[in-house]
Amino acid sequence: MNTGRHEFELIAWIRQQTRAHDRIPLGIGDDTAALAFPNPANCLVTVDMLMEGVHFTMPPATPRQIGHKALAVNLSDIAAMAGRPLAAVISLALPRGVPAKLAEELYAGIEELADQFDVAIAGGDTNSWQGPLVISITALGETTDRGAVTRSGARPGDAIFVTGGLGGSLAGKHLDFTPRINEASKLHEAVDLHAMLDVSDGLAADLQHIVEESGVGVILEESEIPISPAAQTAAEEDGRSAWDHALSDGEDFELLFTVSGDDAARLLANSPLEIPLSRIGTVVDGNEMQLRTAAGKVIPLPVSGWKHLL
Amino acid sequence: MNTGRHEFELIAWIRQQTRAHDRIPLGIGDDTAALAFPNPANCLVTVDMLMEGVHFTMPPATPRQIGHKALAVNLSDIAAMAGRPLAAVISLALPRGVPAKLAEELYAGIEELADQFDVAIAGGDTNSWQGPLVISITALGETTDRGAVTRSGARPGDAIFVTGGLGGSLAGKHLDFTPRINEASKLHEAVDLHAMLDVSDGLAADLQHIVEESGVGVILEESEIPISPAAQTAAEEDGRSAWDHALSDGEDFELLFTVSGDDAARLLANSPLEIPLSRIGTVVDGNEMQLRTAAGKVIPLPVSGWKHLL
Repeated sequence: MNTGRHEFELIAWIRQQTRAHDRIPLGIGDDTAALAFPNPANCLVTVDMLMEGVHFTMPPATPRQIGHKALAVNLSDIAAMAGRPLAAVISLALPRGVPAKLAEELYAGIEELADQFDVAIAGGDTNSWQGPLVISITALGETTDRGAVTRSGARPGDAIFVTGGLGGSLAGKHLDFTPRINEASKLHEAVDLHAMLDVSDGLAADLQHIVEESGVGVILEESEIPISPAAQTAAEEDGRSAWDHALSDGEDFELLFTVSGDDAARLLANSPLEIPLSRIGTVVDGNEMQLRTAAGKVIPLPVSGWKHLL
Repeated sequence: MNTGRHEFELIAWIRQQTRAHDRIPLGIGDDTAALAFPNPANCLVTVDMLMEGVHFTMPPATPRQIGHKALAVNLSDIAAMAGRPLAAVISLALPRGVPAKLAEELYAGIEELADQFDVAIAGGDTNSWQGPLVISITALGETTDRGAVTRSGARPGDAIFVTGGLGGSLAGKHLDFTPRINEASKLHEAVDLHAMLDVSDGLAADLQHIVEESGVGVILEESEIPISPAAQTAAEEDGRSAWDHALSDGEDFELLFTVSGDDAARLLANSPLEIPLSRIGTVVDGNEMQLRTAAGKVIPLPVSGWKHLL
């Protein structure tokens, strides 16, 4: 990680902020960090880059919210594997001339979420340039004893579930959401998760990932999709239906997963979660994505194209 | 890792290019990758971000060179710990409208170097936007049985060595260099490396990192600094001395390290390397950086400020 002199001060500040962690025998201040993984046979690694003007605009987003989101989207990916996050490294392109306070707030947003989930900040690369703000975080984690839950394990007969409510995330949730680390962990203990991911591209688009990776078809129940209040508000504003928002807005960062019929009954009778859990459809043979309408008719699922927020 | 529809094609192409690797039980195509580290108690992790207009301009840099450099700077950091690189993840902001060929060439540059050092490409996040090209690579590695070589182990009495020649990297080397992975490994086997880093900020600035982290002083020998032919050329062009270029240009990506006097004699008598190895100074008590001139006079080291290339 090489450094311009004008970045040294910020890095010294970050180094001061970053607490020692027994998982990080060597942290910020050398050429690499060294990590001691508790269960290193199954390291999870994921990276997400957020770009100003694409994934956020500032304002209305605050630097603290951007820092939060940059780590949260990564933790959401680790949640999607039912994994436990352990460490993260951060690379940053700061617009030249922004006040030092901005970078500090950005890191404060990262640190706050890192502390909440005991994620060690192991290092980073801080740069400045004439361009917009870019932040890329790589998160490292580990699987639990039950292993990683992939996208490819859905089987015909499975029930499809989703946590929380969907749609309208752009109004605020995409900046403030809590990654479903704890919920994924509780589900992983309670039942045999066949396939799982986090809803980032939108319910329909993400369901398609499971369809493709598992080699199955799905039938969604129109009347069971959990529509968030934010989707209702968005619908009132733009005239599209709230249901359409729930299906295709994306950036919900809820868990979408499939389990056997028996486990589905168990979850519906006694959910281990404190947030809503909805059974929204069924995995079937084939490779089609279909919708059972409220009137009981089965039709091809109308997939709205995923659009970049903004 | 979430995805816009227009990035899916590129990702499918990348996935096709990326060979299966027994170190990566789960590669591109899920929410995270899973890695199986051979020796997981000591994972090394480092990240570097390269930005168009700061770390390269295109042209003259080709996409293939940029891909090469983006991975090479990370491998150089792992070399600086005398570690072995294992895997990498890539996040990318592509200027909207660039030809698909550009992204493919960028990845080809990465893959070629990854193959050379058996680095598994485990995943990534590919985006497009209106801004310039940004690429951030996180590399993961492991230490050898002899442990990681940090910046903090230099002791008074140590000899200071550097590999290769220094200065003038901007003329081309910064895009094409081979990270000193193999050289670091051979040195680590041959002698007891007390402190090491890769020369990225410039010899004087990087030596200062060792001075600060080890709590020592240094005396450099003016006449022993290995001046590269590129530094000579740069000097003819801009009128600064070749020596000054060697001291402060940066991006040399050579190894700078300290060893005991006995090990120094051993290295000078019988170097394990096929590239030049120069003894350039001595570690002393205190915290000063000094220079012994060709005339034998000891003066404070004139440290030119590090400047961003370009």
